[in-house]
Amino acid sequence: MTTIAELGSQISWNDQGLVPAIIQDESDGRVLMMAWMSFESLAKTFELGETVFFSRSRNELWHKGATSGNTQAVSKIEFDCDSDSLLIQVSANGPACHTGKNSCFDAGVVEVNR
Amino acid sequence: MTTIAELGSQISWNDQGLVPAIIQDESDGRVLMMAWMSFESLAKTFELGETVFFSRSRNELWHKGATSGNTQAVSKIEFDCDSDSLLIQVSANGPACHTGKNSCFDAGVVEVNR
Repeated sequence: MTTIAELGSQISWNDQGLVPAIIQDESDGRVLMMAWMSFESLAKTFELGETVFFSRSRNELWHKGATSGNTQAVSKIEFDCDSDSLLIQVSANGPACHTGKNSCFDAGVVEVNR
Repeated sequence: MTTIAELGSQISWNDQGLVPAIIQDESDGRVLMMAWMSFESLAKTFELGETVFFSRSRNELWHKGATSGNTQAVSKIEFDCDSDSLLIQVSANGPACHTGKNSCFDAGVVEVNR
């Protein structure tokens, strides 16, 4: 059993004490959003079993869906090879995006010819 | 038709002139890695049709697979709602990770009880 302290010590936090977290819908593999986590927000994510980010604009913890109800239940957290980004598998209770779209990445697309 | 200049002007680059790019395997939806792009690396990605990142440790462009052969052919680039991160769909010619694993996120996982 991994404790949050052990987990936190394995992560390469950036110079602001944050790590990027990629949120993926475990039901269909759609990437929903990318946001930042502090140690405190990661600990809170474990405690609640729902995503809690660190808002860089508001400089505070941000429990996703606390107001809207569009929470994200976390099933697993994956680490990359240099431990400086997280991939978090979730079951989404509603759209991820404040625009009402399922994914924040539904905002625009450019096709690349090859 | 979107030009690279138009595209670059739509992106919210961070104070280092970079944007995080999430790389997803279009064949199975697996998230392969996260890396950073500068305007120059994004332009090069368009030119080659393969991922080109900006290496923060080496402070230079990094054409993924130029040495290993494990290139990533880009099919589309998606933007998030505040244009400060990219989701790039690729067809991978070999493993993404320098460890030989398909995804950099195969390095470790923590299950979250809920």
